[in-house]
Amino acid sequence: MATPHINRKIILKQRPQGRVTPEAFELKEAPAPTPADGQVLLQVRYLSLDPYMRGRMNDAKSYSEPVAVGAVMEGGTVCEVIESRHPKFAVGDIVLSHSGWQTYAVSDGKGLRKIDPQAAPISTALGVLGMPGFTAYSGLLTLGQPKAGETVVVAAASGPVGSAVGQIAHIKGARAIGIAGGPEKCAFVKNELGFDAAIDHHAPDFAEQLARACPDGIDVYFENVGGAVWDAVFPLLNTFSRVPVCGLIAQYDGLKTDGPDRLPALMQQVLAKRIMLRGFIQFDFIDQQPAFLKEMAQWIKEGKVKYREDIVDGLDRAPEAFIGLLSGKNFGKLAIKVT
Amino acid sequence: MATPHINRKIILKQRPQGRVTPEAFELKEAPAPTPADGQVLLQVRYLSLDPYMRGRMNDAKSYSEPVAVGAVMEGGTVCEVIESRHPKFAVGDIVLSHSGWQTYAVSDGKGLRKIDPQAAPISTALGVLGMPGFTAYSGLLTLGQPKAGETVVVAAASGPVGSAVGQIAHIKGARAIGIAGGPEKCAFVKNELGFDAAIDHHAPDFAEQLARACPDGIDVYFENVGGAVWDAVFPLLNTFSRVPVCGLIAQYDGLKTDGPDRLPALMQQVLAKRIMLRGFIQFDFIDQQPAFLKEMAQWIKEGKVKYREDIVDGLDRAPEAFIGLLSGKNFGKLAIKVT
Repeated sequence: MATPHINRKIILKQRPQGRVTPEAFELKEAPAPTPADGQVLLQVRYLSLDPYMRGRMNDAKSYSEPVAVGAVMEGGTVCEVIESRHPKFAVGDIVLSHSGWQTYAVSDGKGLRKIDPQAAPISTALGVLGMPGFTAYSGLLTLGQPKAGETVVVAAASGPVGSAVGQIAHIKGARAIGIAGGPEKCAFVKNELGFDAAIDHHAPDFAEQLARACPDGIDVYFENVGGAVWDAVFPLLNTFSRVPVCGLIAQYDGLKTDGPDRLPALMQQVLAKRIMLRGFIQFDFIDQQPAFLKEMAQWIKEGKVKYREDIVDGLDRAPEAFIGLLSGKNFGKLAIKVT
Repeated sequence: MATPHINRKIILKQRPQGRVTPEAFELKEAPAPTPADGQVLLQVRYLSLDPYMRGRMNDAKSYSEPVAVGAVMEGGTVCEVIESRHPKFAVGDIVLSHSGWQTYAVSDGKGLRKIDPQAAPISTALGVLGMPGFTAYSGLLTLGQPKAGETVVVAAASGPVGSAVGQIAHIKGARAIGIAGGPEKCAFVKNELGFDAAIDHHAPDFAEQLARACPDGIDVYFENVGGAVWDAVFPLLNTFSRVPVCGLIAQYDGLKTDGPDRLPALMQQVLAKRIMLRGFIQFDFIDQQPAFLKEMAQWIKEGKVKYREDIVDGLDRAPEAFIGLLSGKNFGKLAIKVT
């Protein structure tokens, strides 16, 4: 007989207009579902919070369907199998799943990936060894293609994507310039992660500092923020530079279309400098995932890739933590310790 | 002893501010230069007029140096060797060169390519079998990569680049949609060149017509004009679409930066649809030129690629013809018959 678990879940109560506020969310309780034959019951241990979730809150066609109003917020999770009626999963297995902002979920096993808790802390499956790390790896290597001696710039450099981008650039022999918010994050990026320079985007002379840190221009700009950082990066882009675009957190709250119109200058420079701009989502490169898991685990072991996690305790704090993420308050890969 | 040829040349008298006017140019006469040992004297037969020349008139760093004020305007030419002190060239040889807007020039042979006048009309070395044809070939095949069943859109479709883009797209099994100015050009694009549709960008419902002609969206937009056409194309771009950017004739007279700012929406769609935008200049792909010459000559022979030339008689008409080119007055590849 199923246990009387109470599932706590955070639903999208209403779509935000512009900036996300706590009113967009609602915590609800309901009996946890009971696994049918061929299913497992999962207890969520960690919930990943990521910028892409902001896009899912809008009622707009993008690369994925929006979260329906009233539905559980979407998200990657690390779970423990606590009941199994599935031949391939046993009670106690730790799995990566996409169970969303809740404490329990059932699964028929599709899309679950077992995690070895001995190999690395299980939360890393949401960060450096998970979607953010893979975003960095696939986008940088496939589209950015940094070469030895080139200059790679990435924003949100203390975050899980940015930190991996810069460190992988280093492994490939390129210079890594990180942009981050505030002196503490910049110190971490430069001293702990070993970037060649870290620039604080809050600095009044941010653009000048960035230019000084890139005396030979920028060959790869890994775009994950958009907004004002772009304006500082744009004039520094070199001939034949590459701009993989994986995120635009600065404009997720809505498009600011006040002029001047920056499109004509962009196109002019794209032409004159033969710049490549290319959007991507990590699952476009899903066939590279086995290679990623192998290489990244090795790099972590060798100390070539370091990472930092920002773990917040308790599902009920997910809305507040997520809102903080959108304004850069997290420091490292943000995840919720659910149980 | 050198012959007493008089060289007529058109110089850049002053840099245009915005729209080009005849005052930017001046016709001058001077004795033709005398070839030294190892040089040839060339008499210009055809001068190519191309949109890129507008960029050279500005004092702005681009992929090439600007033409100096007082210097002869730059341009590709088909010439006849009329004196030779070079072992590899004989009097009477027809060569492709970059001799500019003038009637005579000397050359040390570097960059000259002999043309076989029996193979095709020599003027085609400036058009379908020259730089414009190669721009279409290299940009479309290397960056656009049209696949069977996909939709390829190109503007200035009756011009030398656009007409080749659409016809090569057809050869690769893609649908070809051309944009051109006026009913006469559109009829030519559809009926003579065999595009699947031709849309008149002067039509008040241009954007709606384009959308109807592209019921499955746009997979490749070969950007050679910029301006208003882009706004009609942009919402139709498909997931994983490719946008090779080889020209922006609509904005060569200066950047209009009046809002709204279209950059945030561009970046949003680049991300959501994983669009690739990539500028190029045909000489980036110069190693493909032998393959181009072979394939294009074969396609012309087989009737798979047709072309149209717009030949204007007399060097003194070059400024007027060039100004017309910038506003789309030419109909086919524009060249000046110099002698």
